[in-house]
Amino acid sequence: MITLKQVATKAGVSYQTVSKVLNRKIQVSEETEKRIMDAVRDSGYRPNQIARNMRAKRSLMIGYSWVQTSPDQVNHILDLFLTSMVREAEAAGYHLLPFPFRAGQAHVDDYRELIDTSRVDGFVLSSVNYNDPRINFLLERRVPFVSFGRSNPELDFPYVDVDGADGLLQAVEHLIANGHRRIAAIAWPDNSRVGNERMRGYFQAMQSAGLKTHPEWIERGEGTYEFGREAAFRLLELPEANHPTAIVTLNDTQAIGALHVARERGLEVGRDVAIVGFDDAPMSQYLQPALTTVRQPISEAGHKCVEILVSLMERNPPQDHQALLKPRLIVRASG
Amino acid sequence: MITLKQVATKAGVSYQTVSKVLNRKIQVSEETEKRIMDAVRDSGYRPNQIARNMRAKRSLMIGYSWVQTSPDQVNHILDLFLTSMVREAEAAGYHLLPFPFRAGQAHVDDYRELIDTSRVDGFVLSSVNYNDPRINFLLERRVPFVSFGRSNPELDFPYVDVDGADGLLQAVEHLIANGHRRIAAIAWPDNSRVGNERMRGYFQAMQSAGLKTHPEWIERGEGTYEFGREAAFRLLELPEANHPTAIVTLNDTQAIGALHVARERGLEVGRDVAIVGFDDAPMSQYLQPALTTVRQPISEAGHKCVEILVSLMERNPPQDHQALLKPRLIVRASG
Repeated sequence: MITLKQVATKAGVSYQTVSKVLNRKIQVSEETEKRIMDAVRDSGYRPNQIARNMRAKRSLMIGYSWVQTSPDQVNHILDLFLTSMVREAEAAGYHLLPFPFRAGQAHVDDYRELIDTSRVDGFVLSSVNYNDPRINFLLERRVPFVSFGRSNPELDFPYVDVDGADGLLQAVEHLIANGHRRIAAIAWPDNSRVGNERMRGYFQAMQSAGLKTHPEWIERGEGTYEFGREAAFRLLELPEANHPTAIVTLNDTQAIGALHVARERGLEVGRDVAIVGFDDAPMSQYLQPALTTVRQPISEAGHKCVEILVSLMERNPPQDHQALLKPRLIVRASG
Repeated sequence: MITLKQVATKAGVSYQTVSKVLNRKIQVSEETEKRIMDAVRDSGYRPNQIARNMRAKRSLMIGYSWVQTSPDQVNHILDLFLTSMVREAEAAGYHLLPFPFRAGQAHVDDYRELIDTSRVDGFVLSSVNYNDPRINFLLERRVPFVSFGRSNPELDFPYVDVDGADGLLQAVEHLIANGHRRIAAIAWPDNSRVGNERMRGYFQAMQSAGLKTHPEWIERGEGTYEFGREAAFRLLELPEANHPTAIVTLNDTQAIGALHVARERGLEVGRDVAIVGFDDAPMSQYLQPALTTVRQPISEAGHKCVEILVSLMERNPPQDHQALLKPRLIVRASG
């Protein structure tokens, strides 16, 4: 899509001049006006899009709120995700409006207030789970939004998501190709939509290879270092016949816990036991051994969220309002 | 400062109702109006503040732009800093407007455009260095701003900064108290304002303790894992008489590089050589040994930036328009 800035560059005038001329707020020389109108025509910038953008009712703002990570953890996707959204928004003539995240119904009130006070034209959601009250509210109010992450399968709404099942599928297929047969998983609690989706890939890969999974190979708990330790401890204590030779995890923090326990037990990770993370957190490369892990296409997700949302806000129905992006396995020394 | 939200809570009506009543956009019952006006009076909310906020010329937005971290690093302060700013801004009736960072003069144009199109009322700056063109531009245009970080000492402008010199001072004093006398530093290049400021604390602590510093103990280079390795390698190769027993660094990533080199050389970090980081990056606690490091009060800095900026935007000169916050040494096993 063409922005006012691109028109201005083409016409060799400032953004403000283009905006004022198109809105008849200033008069310029005939020659300059011709240059601007030529640039508008050549670039395919639609005058009604300008008119719509310039009408006072439009805020040209996109609301965005995220769950703050606890102080001893790190949100390693925030910078990439925000930067990609901010850039994509700017290219389309929009800005992001970040606002604080609150749990539950109170948070819906924050969305309502931003809509009622005309502060935003649409939203990007994140940290979406099952039965997210924001989704029903925004669908009812017919406010444009794109969710980064899926929710209940029966609801149809615009989303961008990373195919977490494919991430675990890649991880487990890689381990199988390296000769592993007894592969355990440190997973998240049952009520985590993202966790369940990722585990689908684990089960699918095991099944496709004709491998059995044992209930004691599936450890479910929080995505913390401590739970990674606890779970790995139990897995590595299993009797010889049932002893896993590889462990996949749902995030790098769990993987680090598992890695430390393995090392403390005198195992060489990568040789005696394989451990695979998920996230490719920036310090994963500096672990010893460096962590094999699944990297999510976060910048692409940020761009795509805003691209679909802008189409919806501009009332150009997007070609496809749901996008599932593939993650990538980064193979290092740990497995 | 009192917000419209607090007035609304006190009056038992919605934010929008208060806003509309004060701006004479709706009529409510006499009783409700009285309740609202009582709440305004009781809370000390100044009517001219409302009037000013509500006039169409004010955007109630704060512009903010940050340097994106390279994809293999992590910006571990962004979440804390943004969240604290977003919360403080919301309490004062403002929102943040993030926009893309560009290098050099082009970036000043981004600031100019946001001012000229009335998209923001003020700015929080970060990634400020010597001779930052944004500072002169905003001072000339008399646009309210607060810088997270200082610049040239001869310029007087509102800032919030973390006292990096005090951070290194604490680190070096801690090492001296533990018996170290030959303390080396892995620093940043000479043209880094933040780096030079931190190193001031190193020299000050050494001098106060009557300890000599040797030029070969000061390694200057990028804040990367690779430079941390290179520098530590050279330091640990120094002849016995001049061999440092402790190494301070200017960030955790350098410290991790140094830690790996020490371990590869058969040294036990924390016993044979002490290594101290700076940042308290979230994974520092999971290193083996866990990293002693300096933690910056990032949430406090975010709050303070917005607090001072709001005072400036509301034309209530703040009590103090410059704040220097103390960091804190987190002692763990590495030194």
